[in-house]
Amino acid sequence: MRMVDIIEKKRNGEELSTEEIQFIIQGYTAGEIPDYQVSALMMAIYFQDMNERERADLTMAMVQSGDQIDLSKIEGIKVDKHSTGGVGDTTTLSLAAMVAACGVPVAKMSGRGLGHTGGTIDKLESISGFHVELSTEQFVKQVNDIKMAVIGQSGNLTPADKKLYALRDVTGTVPSIPLIASSIMSKKIAAGADSIVLDVKTGDGAFMKTLEDAEELAHAMVKIGNNVGRKTMAIISDMSQPLGFAIGNALEVKEAIDTLRGEGPEDLQELCYTLGSQMVVLGGKASSIDEARAMLKEAVTSGAALNIFKQFIAAQGGDDSVVDDPTRLPQAKYKIKVAAKESGYISKIEADDIGICAMLLGAGRATKESEIDLSVGLVLHKKVGDTVEIGDQLVTIHTNKLDIDDIIQKLYSHIEITKEKTDAPQLIKKIITE
Amino acid sequence: MRMVDIIEKKRNGEELSTEEIQFIIQGYTAGEIPDYQVSALMMAIYFQDMNERERADLTMAMVQSGDQIDLSKIEGIKVDKHSTGGVGDTTTLSLAAMVAACGVPVAKMSGRGLGHTGGTIDKLESISGFHVELSTEQFVKQVNDIKMAVIGQSGNLTPADKKLYALRDVTGTVPSIPLIASSIMSKKIAAGADSIVLDVKTGDGAFMKTLEDAEELAHAMVKIGNNVGRKTMAIISDMSQPLGFAIGNALEVKEAIDTLRGEGPEDLQELCYTLGSQMVVLGGKASSIDEARAMLKEAVTSGAALNIFKQFIAAQGGDDSVVDDPTRLPQAKYKIKVAAKESGYISKIEADDIGICAMLLGAGRATKESEIDLSVGLVLHKKVGDTVEIGDQLVTIHTNKLDIDDIIQKLYSHIEITKEKTDAPQLIKKIITE
Repeated sequence: MRMVDIIEKKRNGEELSTEEIQFIIQGYTAGEIPDYQVSALMMAIYFQDMNERERADLTMAMVQSGDQIDLSKIEGIKVDKHSTGGVGDTTTLSLAAMVAACGVPVAKMSGRGLGHTGGTIDKLESISGFHVELSTEQFVKQVNDIKMAVIGQSGNLTPADKKLYALRDVTGTVPSIPLIASSIMSKKIAAGADSIVLDVKTGDGAFMKTLEDAEELAHAMVKIGNNVGRKTMAIISDMSQPLGFAIGNALEVKEAIDTLRGEGPEDLQELCYTLGSQMVVLGGKASSIDEARAMLKEAVTSGAALNIFKQFIAAQGGDDSVVDDPTRLPQAKYKIKVAAKESGYISKIEADDIGICAMLLGAGRATKESEIDLSVGLVLHKKVGDTVEIGDQLVTIHTNKLDIDDIIQKLYSHIEITKEKTDAPQLIKKIITE
Repeated sequence: MRMVDIIEKKRNGEELSTEEIQFIIQGYTAGEIPDYQVSALMMAIYFQDMNERERADLTMAMVQSGDQIDLSKIEGIKVDKHSTGGVGDTTTLSLAAMVAACGVPVAKMSGRGLGHTGGTIDKLESISGFHVELSTEQFVKQVNDIKMAVIGQSGNLTPADKKLYALRDVTGTVPSIPLIASSIMSKKIAAGADSIVLDVKTGDGAFMKTLEDAEELAHAMVKIGNNVGRKTMAIISDMSQPLGFAIGNALEVKEAIDTLRGEGPEDLQELCYTLGSQMVVLGGKASSIDEARAMLKEAVTSGAALNIFKQFIAAQGGDDSVVDDPTRLPQAKYKIKVAAKESGYISKIEADDIGICAMLLGAGRATKESEIDLSVGLVLHKKVGDTVEIGDQLVTIHTNKLDIDDIIQKLYSHIEITKEKTDAPQLIKKIITE
């Protein structure tokens, strides 16, 4: 087999065989196929696409390129959730505890990552004493004991995907549905999930700007999952404005706790119930979405979900008193209120730009080397569709520095107020099961 | 400027600016832009094409990536000719002497190259004593004195093209009109041509299999030439069967001499007149194609063309007695006649496969390291459209080895005889001037 023949085949729009896809991924991981051939192939795939079978083969070839986490010693069906990412996405923490309270084991491996705020791991580290390194035995035992554990990425998972992603990033081949879908799915499968629930974001603050693109990606991932024997579902949710109110690490932990009490922002609370009910059904703990939803609400009302969250923090060495007293989380020195300069309706809160404001405050990483300030960020007081009077608080800035005039200007220019009544965007756009 | 942005721009079908194209070629030549970004860009160009302006810019950026030959001290308009390559293409040698005899200076830099036979340089070296290394002063003086010189490639011409071509060869990005056209044109321009005549081959034995593709390439190159101030014309000629009768190095030199006497194969003789009349017009020595054609015929009939060829050989140290006695050229030990097994019409002589037979005899290089046997090759006795009786000679094999049963079988299987009358293919398919 010669790589140049494979490139030409794909360039001409032909289907690659399972053996050819394995040859590419094994050869690339081993350093036997050079970057310049793989980047040409990626560009050919960008233009010629891959069919369902090729996508599943590519995913599994990447899974097999490295370690695979064995979660078989954890009782029950392990359901993982993945979000394609957005601004203020605090879902994971609340959702995990809610689902665990319904009896579905949550054995989550999470990342730090670049972005407007840190990843789930960074957020958890804003809880004093919390640690994310557990041995496999500790990890399995904790999930069997209290149904929930979250650890940092360990082992050599999907090295092919890491290498491919780094290459795609510098060769203009990131926005390709088969490549995005196989990249995400390979990581989830290698991390040991039996079933997967996907939250595909759409809108200005998401990677997929249009509903059409988001749907295409969601279908692609659901098909890969189901084709390789992992039951997979997806929802498409709005990311035209930030999710919830909080954007920042400690601020989002507090918001997660509010949500576990049933007092979270309406959109975040609803998203947790929607994703959670899919997870509870896939986890075999309910036979219908409605039943699962009722179980989740009961877990919140009864305090069971909050209780699991507390146990989870304590089990990983964290200070679980933050649950009852969130002021024990890192606090920024200054809280600066940004007030509305006019009255009307909030018509736009541009997620991407608001996220950048949080990053400029220090809440996120611009490069891998950046240090995160866990205490800082933004709390919105209004969402799209809300009425606003002149002088009303729009945002509270939590900051450790005072020279933030540019950030305030940026906030004003990306929160739009109009005289005409505006409706809140629909949060859940679609549910995709095949 | 970032290479990844340029790749994305082209991927999205946008036009690259002159500055961007210079950035790519300069950066790649200097080793500052890695292969993996350039191969992704080449694949994007394969799919998204380049417009006329981009093609001209790419050509000139490659010209400027290395040395440019200064032919300004040679009197007159320097017209170069390029053929896209085929089997038995002996044109250059006869053509150069015919055109020189009409007063157009021929200052030719030629190559060896891979293929069924050697390049022009290899063919010339079958003349005892002939050498292809001249200093620039000697080169210029010889062209001014006798109007004709042919030397091997010297200097660091179009290093960007060399690097790009090697990369395209292993990344499935060879068959792209803007890339092929700019590659060919950059080499001709860097070699100092004022005007260029292109012989674009089409048919089984050519790189461009269809007339449509050949036309597209011819237009692309003619436009590049004219856009960068070098008057350029092209013809599209048949390469469904080998050109002329001879395929081999010394054998083709003999055929070139025949052609200079007006006794060459009909197709080769005609091709020389067609290309030659364009060159004489572009060289300013005739005001019409008809006038130029008459001049060329006169140069042949009068012996002026043959005389220049003799002077040219002598000037470069070669044994010019070969012109009157071609048996002084290297001779193969054995001449094996291949006779027709049936009667009818020759309907096909598959150029590519016949060329491979010549290469298997040792006439060409399979790899850069291969040694060429200048004496061996094939001489056809029939061409497509000819009638043939059982037992008639089809081919004479000139060989130094006798275990050639497989080659004889190959010849039989690629020379097709049918009962139905077949017409000879049209030699000159099109003339393209814009």
